[in-house]
Amino acid sequence: MEVVSQNRCFDGVQMVCTHPSQACGVDMTFAVYLPPQAEDGPVPVLWYLSGLTCTHENAMTKGGFQEHAARHGLAVIFPDTSPRGEGVADDEAYDLGQGAGFYVNATRAPWAAHFRMYDYVLTELRELVLDKLPLADVHGITGHSMGGHGALTLALRNPDKFASLSAFAPIANPTQSDWGRKQLSAYLGDDESAWACYDASLLLQEHGWKDAILIDQGAGDQFLDLLRPEALATVLARRRQAGLVRMQPGYDHSYYFVATFAGEHVDWHAERLHRPRN
Amino acid sequence: MEVVSQNRCFDGVQMVCTHPSQACGVDMTFAVYLPPQAEDGPVPVLWYLSGLTCTHENAMTKGGFQEHAARHGLAVIFPDTSPRGEGVADDEAYDLGQGAGFYVNATRAPWAAHFRMYDYVLTELRELVLDKLPLADVHGITGHSMGGHGALTLALRNPDKFASLSAFAPIANPTQSDWGRKQLSAYLGDDESAWACYDASLLLQEHGWKDAILIDQGAGDQFLDLLRPEALATVLARRRQAGLVRMQPGYDHSYYFVATFAGEHVDWHAERLHRPRN
Repeated sequence: MEVVSQNRCFDGVQMVCTHPSQACGVDMTFAVYLPPQAEDGPVPVLWYLSGLTCTHENAMTKGGFQEHAARHGLAVIFPDTSPRGEGVADDEAYDLGQGAGFYVNATRAPWAAHFRMYDYVLTELRELVLDKLPLADVHGITGHSMGGHGALTLALRNPDKFASLSAFAPIANPTQSDWGRKQLSAYLGDDESAWACYDASLLLQEHGWKDAILIDQGAGDQFLDLLRPEALATVLARRRQAGLVRMQPGYDHSYYFVATFAGEHVDWHAERLHRPRN
Repeated sequence: MEVVSQNRCFDGVQMVCTHPSQACGVDMTFAVYLPPQAEDGPVPVLWYLSGLTCTHENAMTKGGFQEHAARHGLAVIFPDTSPRGEGVADDEAYDLGQGAGFYVNATRAPWAAHFRMYDYVLTELRELVLDKLPLADVHGITGHSMGGHGALTLALRNPDKFASLSAFAPIANPTQSDWGRKQLSAYLGDDESAWACYDASLLLQEHGWKDAILIDQGAGDQFLDLLRPEALATVLARRRQAGLVRMQPGYDHSYYFVATFAGEHVDWHAERLHRPRN
């Protein structure tokens, strides 16, 4: 792991790192914020997964998470959204290929060679940061849009690996959306039975979640038809799942929306990640 | 004035606007954050002037000012750092011409035709926003690097126009720095007597300031030799000027530094801008 940059921020440090990834078969870049409390011992980890077209950088610079993470003594990790570079397959569309990994393990050519963001985030990057950084093995996960989809699907499939869960304007039901069907078809093939394990609404219906889930969604979001929050809200209510889907009047899909509610999401995770454990 | 974008943010609205500028002779872009309190009546204004290479956008997206401004009921205005576009003179260097207006009124060719950022910010944009937006005619000013220089020089020359003053890592003594001598020479000519009214340390020595001044400076700033905070600190002490120059250990020149202390600067201005007036 190589540290590309370090900037002091809210008495902690914002770092950008690269490392060779076995899962993705290329070097990957990620950002991590270490709060001041990390100088005194391991701190819990909040994973933030970003949306379409983003790199590790967008939420790091625009989300305002550092202030809140410093207040609560949480690290925040911002992975990239896909493998990148020469030799990595891509597509002209903004919503397929580089910048659009959808947090799946692709099984179809040309994507299967590198697009294994599910394994990368869930296992490889987790093990790397636990090994190299002063982090406790206690994790929460959140994300925005495609990254909200990633956060929900990773956590719902791996409840033993995450203690807290939230999302900002997640792609909530990709098997029924143009933000999903196109990508799942490309990455996984046309057999839709392989898609269900990457659909938050279907996963929540099947597995539930062990604790409350926080979802914020801008009521003025320009992509509401693609995000399908109503699918997730329906399952939440039907299953009597603890949690809340907050429709926030006037907010759109931008980082202004994310930054506005970042503090409350970090509060949400901190409350759960700092709970005494056995 | 044309509204280019509007995004809900911390219950207020982040806007980007363009307008034809008489001072600069081209269309200019600026950003303004209106806090939720502006729905109920005029709110005081905090001006944030940006540094070299920036547009209206950098601090708007990376500074985190909106959260603090919403808390205090202040508007924040983010002007551009120079005129731009075809027909506007420029230079290959990042620190002269477009993106590097230095908040002066240029008197020399080829700059004099458009580079009148002093008049633009102090008078034209001020009158425009007071006319078009729900703003009280009560102003504070701050800025970063070249913008800290702009904030200090505009306020020190016009104490009747600003009720509060702070700066982040300002270019504090440009007549004695390579961030200054080159630009003042280009914009104003080689007669250095014309430069003094654009040097914060010389202006503070001459005029003082009616209230306390807050300066934050990263002790790990990679540009300390160009910024010359020691010149301003010397004048402050010698003149018994109320105020503080805080050397912040470990912080560099980036927006991570600005964002870290943005809350305290907004607190500083809010305390002064909300004081009862005659």
